[in-house]
Amino acid sequence: MDEVKKTGSAQAGGIEGVWTQNLAEIDTDGGPVLHMLRADGSLFRQFGEIYFSLVRPGAVKAWKYHRLQTQNFAVPHGLIEVILFDDREGSPSKGTLKSFLLGRPGNYRLLQIPPGVWYGFTCRSEDSALLANCADLPHSPGEDVRIPADSPKIPYSWKV
Amino acid sequence: MDEVKKTGSAQAGGIEGVWTQNLAEIDTDGGPVLHMLRADGSLFRQFGEIYFSLVRPGAVKAWKYHRLQTQNFAVPHGLIEVILFDDREGSPSKGTLKSFLLGRPGNYRLLQIPPGVWYGFTCRSEDSALLANCADLPHSPGEDVRIPADSPKIPYSWKV
Repeated sequence: MDEVKKTGSAQAGGIEGVWTQNLAEIDTDGGPVLHMLRADGSLFRQFGEIYFSLVRPGAVKAWKYHRLQTQNFAVPHGLIEVILFDDREGSPSKGTLKSFLLGRPGNYRLLQIPPGVWYGFTCRSEDSALLANCADLPHSPGEDVRIPADSPKIPYSWKV
Repeated sequence: MDEVKKTGSAQAGGIEGVWTQNLAEIDTDGGPVLHMLRADGSLFRQFGEIYFSLVRPGAVKAWKYHRLQTQNFAVPHGLIEVILFDDREGSPSKGTLKSFLLGRPGNYRLLQIPPGVWYGFTCRSEDSALLANCADLPHSPGEDVRIPADSPKIPYSWKV
């Protein structure tokens, strides 16, 4: 019998402008079909670029924010923990740190991150995990801001 | 030292309207960044939907064509062989069958399939492979046409 987990409605992510949405996993004979983002979906704005970031076990990719680009993350292979930190002046959630586990099994969902919010991520599966990002603008050099993973600017310690 | 394989130019795929393009793999410390499709890329038309199809070892997903939708395939995890068959009336490549190996390592590239061309695929890696499809229209029921993997209509035998 085919199992269908449907794409849910968007949920506020605890930081202003951050959204999550459970994504459909449609089990078929040869392997499941995994939804991510549709042009008619509630969290879709515009298409800029789709790319992938492979993350090896224990590896940390952090910290970064974008001046203009909105990120849409999903993890179709493995598990990735994404940490967000809101340091935006005037944001009602300024100072908030949040953790999101993304991937399969059990946590297949979309995470939308607006411009200005710091993010970093690490692999939480035994094998490498694959993060897909369907961003609303194509990558352009200098549009992102980076600081080291151990920067004291962000109150989080990566346990590697 | 970081290794960068750049996204190449579009190459004709041997069937009218089929294109391939080598995709950038940018090696970084925690794992490579893998390009797929940009809004300013030469093969981009419009965004409809991005979804994934996981294919278990030995599994076959075939055959299908779309009446309206153009497919953009890339395989960021594992290896998948895609078979195409052109049965379109009036196509200069009518009767042509082509095979494309997609995935990593060694074959990370985009495959663009226009409406009307039959396609099917199978996993060619030891572990499950993940096909990403960034189509130009969102999925709508009845827009695709399906026949069984062993249909005599297509001169190809899946060796499972």
